[in-house]
Amino acid sequence: MIEVDIIISNGLVLTIDENETVIENGAIAIDGENIIAVGKSEEIKARYISRKSIDATNHMIMPGLINSHTHAAMTCFRGIADDIELMDWLNDYIFPAEAKNVNVELAFWGSLLACAEMIKSGTTTFCDMYIFEDETAKAAKEAGMRCLLGEVLFDFPSPNFKTPAEGLEYTRMLIEKWADDPLVNIMVEPHSLYTCSSSLLIDAKSLADQYKVPIATHFLENKGEAKQLRKKLGKRATNFLKDINYLDERFFAFHCVCMDEEDIKIFADSGCKVVHNPESNMKLASGVAPISSMLDHGIVVGLGTDGCASNNNLDMLQEMDTAAKLEKVERLDPTVMSAHTVTHMATCNGARVLGMENLAGSLKAGMKADIIAIDLNKPHLTPMYNSYSHLVYAVNGSDVTTVIINGKIVMKDRRLLTINEAEVMKRVKEIALGIKKSLGIG
Amino acid sequence: MIEVDIIISNGLVLTIDENETVIENGAIAIDGENIIAVGKSEEIKARYISRKSIDATNHMIMPGLINSHTHAAMTCFRGIADDIELMDWLNDYIFPAEAKNVNVELAFWGSLLACAEMIKSGTTTFCDMYIFEDETAKAAKEAGMRCLLGEVLFDFPSPNFKTPAEGLEYTRMLIEKWADDPLVNIMVEPHSLYTCSSSLLIDAKSLADQYKVPIATHFLENKGEAKQLRKKLGKRATNFLKDINYLDERFFAFHCVCMDEEDIKIFADSGCKVVHNPESNMKLASGVAPISSMLDHGIVVGLGTDGCASNNNLDMLQEMDTAAKLEKVERLDPTVMSAHTVTHMATCNGARVLGMENLAGSLKAGMKADIIAIDLNKPHLTPMYNSYSHLVYAVNGSDVTTVIINGKIVMKDRRLLTINEAEVMKRVKEIALGIKKSLGIG
Repeated sequence: MIEVDIIISNGLVLTIDENETVIENGAIAIDGENIIAVGKSEEIKARYISRKSIDATNHMIMPGLINSHTHAAMTCFRGIADDIELMDWLNDYIFPAEAKNVNVELAFWGSLLACAEMIKSGTTTFCDMYIFEDETAKAAKEAGMRCLLGEVLFDFPSPNFKTPAEGLEYTRMLIEKWADDPLVNIMVEPHSLYTCSSSLLIDAKSLADQYKVPIATHFLENKGEAKQLRKKLGKRATNFLKDINYLDERFFAFHCVCMDEEDIKIFADSGCKVVHNPESNMKLASGVAPISSMLDHGIVVGLGTDGCASNNNLDMLQEMDTAAKLEKVERLDPTVMSAHTVTHMATCNGARVLGMENLAGSLKAGMKADIIAIDLNKPHLTPMYNSYSHLVYAVNGSDVTTVIINGKIVMKDRRLLTINEAEVMKRVKEIALGIKKSLGIG
Repeated sequence: MIEVDIIISNGLVLTIDENETVIENGAIAIDGENIIAVGKSEEIKARYISRKSIDATNHMIMPGLINSHTHAAMTCFRGIADDIELMDWLNDYIFPAEAKNVNVELAFWGSLLACAEMIKSGTTTFCDMYIFEDETAKAAKEAGMRCLLGEVLFDFPSPNFKTPAEGLEYTRMLIEKWADDPLVNIMVEPHSLYTCSSSLLIDAKSLADQYKVPIATHFLENKGEAKQLRKKLGKRATNFLKDINYLDERFFAFHCVCMDEEDIKIFADSGCKVVHNPESNMKLASGVAPISSMLDHGIVVGLGTDGCASNNNLDMLQEMDTAAKLEKVERLDPTVMSAHTVTHMATCNGARVLGMENLAGSLKAGMKADIIAIDLNKPHLTPMYNSYSHLVYAVNGSDVTTVIINGKIVMKDRRLLTINEAEVMKRVKEIALGIKKSLGIG
């Protein structure tokens, strides 16, 4: 008998491995940070003995979800302005609110609240772009979440830096500071082609190349941006990115609503990846990204919630449901974007987008133990015919009961073990009072 | 001091009354089936004393949600066939599964499971169309839910009747049997214009007129149906309905995806109402109903989840979120279908569709006490800037803690008081085993 730290047993295991193995009455042995074995409960229990055991009877066990694009600290602005024009939303609410209120305190507590919300809805890894990302890194570290973070870079001053050069230096500091962390990973994140000069974009890419870290940006989010870029750049935005050497396997782009077939071919040929944000694209009336075509061309697509000011939650299970349904109605074809495809976007393909395919996104020996358990013994989950369709079309974030990240149990029976939930809510409520006062609302 | 049965106090009360009154630290006094008073907690407590009291600190209190179109017993077929063509879905899965399995047992237990799911996600009233509706009525009665039910009528035999005449007689029996019930209301529900002959449609309307009950049908759900009806009827389907005298204030239609401006004008002129089913329309790739135009023309629109085989849940709060986002992205306008509009569709306007505007859908003295409480003290609901947008874009079904219907507490702190949750899940799982066997799956 081999001794391990944790055995989870008696669950329906969706491995999301190469063979789509689904194991009834399955178990997982975990030691340290790693998955040691996945198999039938009886086999695992015959070979391993554990210090802790988790009974997953009536539960689905699967890889933790990967939120491939968010702005975590924007939980503080959740629902601050809805149902209004995008430019009014940005200029009258979001930008003034950020300019007046974003500081290290907001960044830390907003990010920690986001971690609480993400863990409670089954997310174990997130990719973040915002201001004062060192605070987000500290929050993720405290919460025990895996992440890939980048300071948002643009031409104008941010609450964290006066010049783009300072923003790049801050990013370099983050890369070096967190280089050996088991959970926190750093990347380079220029905000967009319409807020960054060519020289900033080129410098950002150099930095990413120097440290061999990923680089990503908002890209072709809506028609207005597409039109503006055409005029500003004098060429197809995708070709502009190609000309400044962005398009390689370490580059990915958020939203990509207005990509056409030519853009998609260029991305596919370059090995670039895409993050789909259907709920944000719907709520801001940006449009529907051509995801089926991207998938047909072999582009790896992940899924993200975007920030809380444009969603207004971080629930990946709801995002998965919406992603599937939106694509079907947009293409008028119920067979596109199957539950299976969407599940991959939120797990193994999200991991590929973030360059974490050897760490997370599927359950097999040698991977990090990022695992969630979902309680199936509920009226809205009864009966069950197909585990994938159940996951996408019926399961909610609140059905997740237990979450393990990097071998550590961070939620058990819906109780957070790494975050003081009451404290973080209290702090963010206080911050929100200040935001209201600064904007003269509420 | 006036003695009443229940006082709910210390909550944020969304009345959804004519003035959109929102009361901070509000309370509601309930006696028997009725709301006696709504106001500030201190005012209510100064005037009334209650036998039971519910502390709604950190909760939103609002009218129970109204699911204006579902097929409750189809919970038994939840997720039985997803991501496939509509006609394959119907002909290879749904129709054979129904023909082989639908009986009084399935109708009762499936409906009772639906009631459990609906109550647990804040729905207090539902409008149902299915087979053996007497069983659905019994289940709703047992659960303590308000409902408007009709036996599905079509030309071919159903598990419950051999001929359309028998279906009409069954409906007449239901109308008379449940005439004086405080919760169960009966209507007439011909399935659609493509499954019902003109004579069945005319007889159905006569029956509805004789008893002055509502009548409703599936209508122009997708392009295929629209094309088929044009050919079958030789005229605009809306004009056909007009010619057989359907179009009046007691008529409403489900889906209405393929209505054009002319159809909308005819409906608006006649006072007919519409039920929007966005998630089902998305999942089956039916299309997007022109809801903004209907609202602009003054049509009263309610919201429904449709059945569990095409959604795959009965969660109205998720449906509200999707309704708002889908309309925005379809019209490429973030200002359409505001949180406010959607909330009305799920409450007061749903009540108008079902002819219950004097009973349900808003909180004011004299209305029946159909009330839900939503726990706001959660990470994904922190902070809050706007109660309506919070409700639509952030609240989930599982945030509902307490539900009162017709003055009776049916759920307290998420524990169902009228339904044995374990028993109903057990029975439906057994029924599902039989369904799997009958179809040779699983």
